Amino acid sequence: MVDPLHSRAGELDAADPLAPFRERFVFADDLLYLDGNSLGRLPVATRERLRRAVEVEWGTGLIRSWDSWIDLAREAGDTLATGVLDASPGEVIVTDSTSVNLYKLASAALDARPGRRVIVVEDDNFPTDRYVLEGLAKARGLELRTVAVHIDHGVQVEDLTGVLDSDVALVCLSHVAYRSGARADMPAITEAVHQVGALMLWDLCHAAGAVPTPLHVSGADLAVGCTYKYLNAGPGAPAYVYVKADLQTSITQPIWGWFGQRDQFAMGPDYEPAAGIQQFMVGSPQIFGLMAVIEGARITAEAGIEAIAAKGAALTTYAIELFDEWIAPHGWALATPREAKQRGAHVTVHHPAAWQVTQALKDAGVIPDFRTPDRLRIGFAPLYTRFEDVHEGFTRLRTIIESGSWQGYSTARSRIT
Amino acid sequence: MVDPLHSRAGELDAADPLAPFRERFVFADDLLYLDGNSLGRLPVATRERLRRAVEVEWGTGLIRSWDSWIDLAREAGDTLATGVLDASPGEVIVTDSTSVNLYKLASAALDARPGRRVIVVEDDNFPTDRYVLEGLAKARGLELRTVAVHIDHGVQVEDLTGVLDSDVALVCLSHVAYRSGARADMPAITEAVHQVGALMLWDLCHAAGAVPTPLHVSGADLAVGCTYKYLNAGPGAPAYVYVKADLQTSITQPIWGWFGQRDQFAMGPDYEPAAGIQQFMVGSPQIFGLMAVIEGARITAEAGIEAIAAKGAALTTYAIELFDEWIAPHGWALATPREAKQRGAHVTVHHPAAWQVTQALKDAGVIPDFRTPDRLRIGFAPLYTRFEDVHEGFTRLRTIIESGSWQGYSTARSRIT
Repeated sequence: MVDPLHSRAGELDAADPLAPFRERFVFADDLLYLDGNSLGRLPVATRERLRRAVEVEWGTGLIRSWDSWIDLAREAGDTLATGVLDASPGEVIVTDSTSVNLYKLASAALDARPGRRVIVVEDDNFPTDRYVLEGLAKARGLELRTVAVHIDHGVQVEDLTGVLDSDVALVCLSHVAYRSGARADMPAITEAVHQVGALMLWDLCHAAGAVPTPLHVSGADLAVGCTYKYLNAGPGAPAYVYVKADLQTSITQPIWGWFGQRDQFAMGPDYEPAAGIQQFMVGSPQIFGLMAVIEGARITAEAGIEAIAAKGAALTTYAIELFDEWIAPHGWALATPREAKQRGAHVTVHHPAAWQVTQALKDAGVIPDFRTPDRLRIGFAPLYTRFEDVHEGFTRLRTIIESGSWQGYSTARSRIT
Repeated sequence: MVDPLHSRAGELDAADPLAPFRERFVFADDLLYLDGNSLGRLPVATRERLRRAVEVEWGTGLIRSWDSWIDLAREAGDTLATGVLDASPGEVIVTDSTSVNLYKLASAALDARPGRRVIVVEDDNFPTDRYVLEGLAKARGLELRTVAVHIDHGVQVEDLTGVLDSDVALVCLSHVAYRSGARADMPAITEAVHQVGALMLWDLCHAAGAVPTPLHVSGADLAVGCTYKYLNAGPGAPAYVYVKADLQTSITQPIWGWFGQRDQFAMGPDYEPAAGIQQFMVGSPQIFGLMAVIEGARITAEAGIEAIAAKGAALTTYAIELFDEWIAPHGWALATPREAKQRGAHVTVHHPAAWQVTQALKDAGVIPDFRTPDRLRIGFAPLYTRFEDVHEGFTRLRTIIESGSWQGYSTARSRIT
């Protein structure tokens, strides 16, 4: 008996213009990896470059290699700016972690809006965003105003009605929500924020490399994001900051390190911020991580973010179709917008048994992840996920649910979820 | 004709208990590398571990490898605490860059001394220390009081007379000065700082892995340091923070990220700092860098910091002897203390031609480094530098100076020095 849903996977894979990009990544076994939204796969080019960087550039070149290493943060930023994000060279630099970058940009934004006493954040924003802003609000005696957002739908411009006013200094939202995958309307929200004279800071972690991030189109002021998800730069690879060109001379970030200093090796007596995006660096950058960002960003740029987003939409649409057909009848609910333009490249479903089912899936050779309170999150990295993989992953999920085999797994959460 | 100075190099190498450690590092050619104080050599164990980490743990294990990665920052901190620094497990964690860590600890210290309006720093402290503190002083309206220090001798406890008073919240000094190699008397200075009720923050960058850092003995409150110098963890490897155990519950660092959160994966609504040293983390740590720190720290711990310091003293003593004999007569001056206990493992000499001579040395296969304004800085990493290397390096330096070949080099500084 032919399964028409399965046949379609084959047709979609056969017609997929990004199919050749799968070969650019390391596949050592037949694991069904549906968690590229959390940690992307290792690109072959990155494996080769890191080996050479460690063994030749560090091992043999030693300190002399800094002649080329010194420009990597800027090169990585420009590669992201022009090939992945909607930005210009000189508007993005790769440095520090997302959390530290959030702190730097949010501090700078608050300094640029003296007298305004409110920071706005969505209540379901990624924890580190909320915590960083909570710390800043507490230190400065400001109000942290949260937008109550339905966790399955993400923040809408309408949610900001009654929240935005002339007291607001800064609004920080995720472009794609980590839990639901809901994608915010960046241009509409940025416009609403600008109408009250506040600055807009976007967290692009779950968006960059999956969907277009219309920074220029929307006039966004500031953005941060990580590189280890859809950008495939590896665990703990450095994050990036985006600062709109015309803001770069009017804001100052608070951590005055020697890599943000003009004429760094003069080692002069007083801090004078470097021109442009360089001032948003702080200390010595992690060199190997910068190389991994460059390699990951290059692959994304070569594939093209529009093509990636189109495949992401098709993968998630197909996944939702399988979900509706096979999983929903068992009492599971979709926690991701049905409209492709309103989501990123991951799909989240929920059910009280989600944690146990997550464990059963891993034992069945499928890697998704789990998010509190009861969410099974399934990522479809467009560069290397096949429609066939989606079909097979959902087939195994269906088997686990229909057989009740998940009941053999503990309800006790592990330390890392 | 037998050169007695050369014979002694052979005798010292033959008697060196650390000589076998040289084999633990990668040597691909006969380069005379005398810059381990800036970027340490690649350990063989690190090369192997990084290859495996990238290709197997990331490449194949993917997100599942976080089960072991999650503890690396703490493991690296404990390895440093017990094997390199004079600290206890749970007092050190590896995270971020030195500059970001300085910011976190200095901010926390200032919050812990409300009402006090002075930060003290030496005027020849490493630039990033001065800049970070300058930024904090400006943001908080505090006074940055600089101790004028002779750049060849480093800060003495006597230099603090008239500087320390009950207005001082925080004193930040380098244990070993980056420019001169002068080693500060950590116990005496810490005691003087505590007598006025201020907190003491030590920068261990140029000390850790070269000399003992008596944190416990001195009662030091806080410390930071990098890992890419004598700890051989590679370019941009993560830095560390030390927070004295009994201070950990009474101070709070300002950057509230999800890796500093208690029960991180609950992703709860409000920030609650993790117990102990964990609260000094912020965002996702660079995993490969943490592994390199662990491997580098292990080698240091195995050799023993006392044995390393003893060899460092012997290497620098021998270098100064060669300098006095061969180089000083040509108008060069020593810019490092002559008493071994008052210096680290690098020796600095100065002369108006230092920049040109530095370039000539590089062309002669010897790698030192240069520091403004006219300093030739020569590092002797005890784990892999031989007395023979010191003799050969100074022989080539002598040839360059006596022949005047350095005059063929440009006085124009390169971008990186």
